Amino acid sequence: MKAVIPYKKSSAKSRLSPVLTLEEREEFVELMLNQVINTLKEAGVGTIDILSPSMYGLEDMTKANVLLDKNDLNEALNGYLEQAEEPVIIVMADLPLLSPDHVKGITSTKADVCIVPGKGGGTNALFIKNPSCYRVRYYGSSFLTHCSIAEETGQSVEVYDSFFAGTDIDEPEDLVELLIHGSGAAKEYISKKFRLEMSRGRVGLTPI
Amino acid sequence: MKAVIPYKKSSAKSRLSPVLTLEEREEFVELMLNQVINTLKEAGVGTIDILSPSMYGLEDMTKANVLLDKNDLNEALNGYLEQAEEPVIIVMADLPLLSPDHVKGITSTKADVCIVPGKGGGTNALFIKNPSCYRVRYYGSSFLTHCSIAEETGQSVEVYDSFFAGTDIDEPEDLVELLIHGSGAAKEYISKKFRLEMSRGRVGLTPI
Repeated sequence: MKAVIPYKKSSAKSRLSPVLTLEEREEFVELMLNQVINTLKEAGVGTIDILSPSMYGLEDMTKANVLLDKNDLNEALNGYLEQAEEPVIIVMADLPLLSPDHVKGITSTKADVCIVPGKGGGTNALFIKNPSCYRVRYYGSSFLTHCSIAEETGQSVEVYDSFFAGTDIDEPEDLVELLIHGSGAAKEYISKKFRLEMSRGRVGLTPI
Repeated sequence: MKAVIPYKKSSAKSRLSPVLTLEEREEFVELMLNQVINTLKEAGVGTIDILSPSMYGLEDMTKANVLLDKNDLNEALNGYLEQAEEPVIIVMADLPLLSPDHVKGITSTKADVCIVPGKGGGTNALFIKNPSCYRVRYYGSSFLTHCSIAEETGQSVEVYDSFFAGTDIDEPEDLVELLIHGSGAAKEYISKKFRLEMSRGRVGLTPI
């Protein structure tokens, strides 16, 4: 079993631009990437590949292999899956609440494919036992798409139900979840810039 | 063990007012309430109490007991807990993705208190084995508050990690989760009014 993390540092996380500068967003995604790699290592994943369209920010990466692919996310991942000869877990780089136990739970599925839904129809992690028989289609409601692709190709699906693994950090409101439930360098970084703002509704953010 | 659902139909879910009229919101919360009651019944919960400041919308309720309490949410719930002589699960009425298996999982905790985090720091469900030794404080970051209250009173805590139980329906974006992951009358109601709108980011809603 091996893991692949799609990653792009350059101009990352544009939907966080209302609250973080370009430089801050690039620093922040690097911290999140490193946390995800550590989580995978702690879960005992032996091979970790980072799939990126550029070496930018990955020049000194020693904890994982860097695979350059200038194709778009889906093409690059499908090329990777086609050549894979063992089960693959695709893990997004923006999951700082993902734990080693989540990774172990996802990869010990009895189904052919295990999907971790993210907010707004996304797919936060995707474990595929027979990668040469599966193709991904991220963007849009990829959770539903990935369920359909498994169904159409006769592969069974488990939906992995986790609030923490389901929390991808894309929008300013997601930083609230990181501050409340997170730990490690990504949380530290955000907690130096924002504090929680209480209200009768959901908790918000205030710059420090 | 018994369940209590705080509920108010009148002018419910004001944060959904950008997309649903007052009448629609009141219809919708009633459907969600009924789904939560059915889920609790299917999980084998024998006593289900609805705690409401008004009989409005509950005149014909036969599936659960209706307890009137005009105090605010926290006072009403704390009065209820004080008098409870058995473990209590407090379940919010806006959890249409909650399943009987979730309820069984939450109530079979080995800890003294089991907390289901909701989006933005909320507490979606709270199982308390010794209710006379516990007090609630909803609003603000109630998840953190409820963890602290347990700690301060020497009660152990389990955090129940579920994307679906963690999805409370408060904001328009939450309706997306209901359309993608839901079933039953609440989903049917929303799917007659909106369809999913795909984009490269998170899925949105479009009125039909």
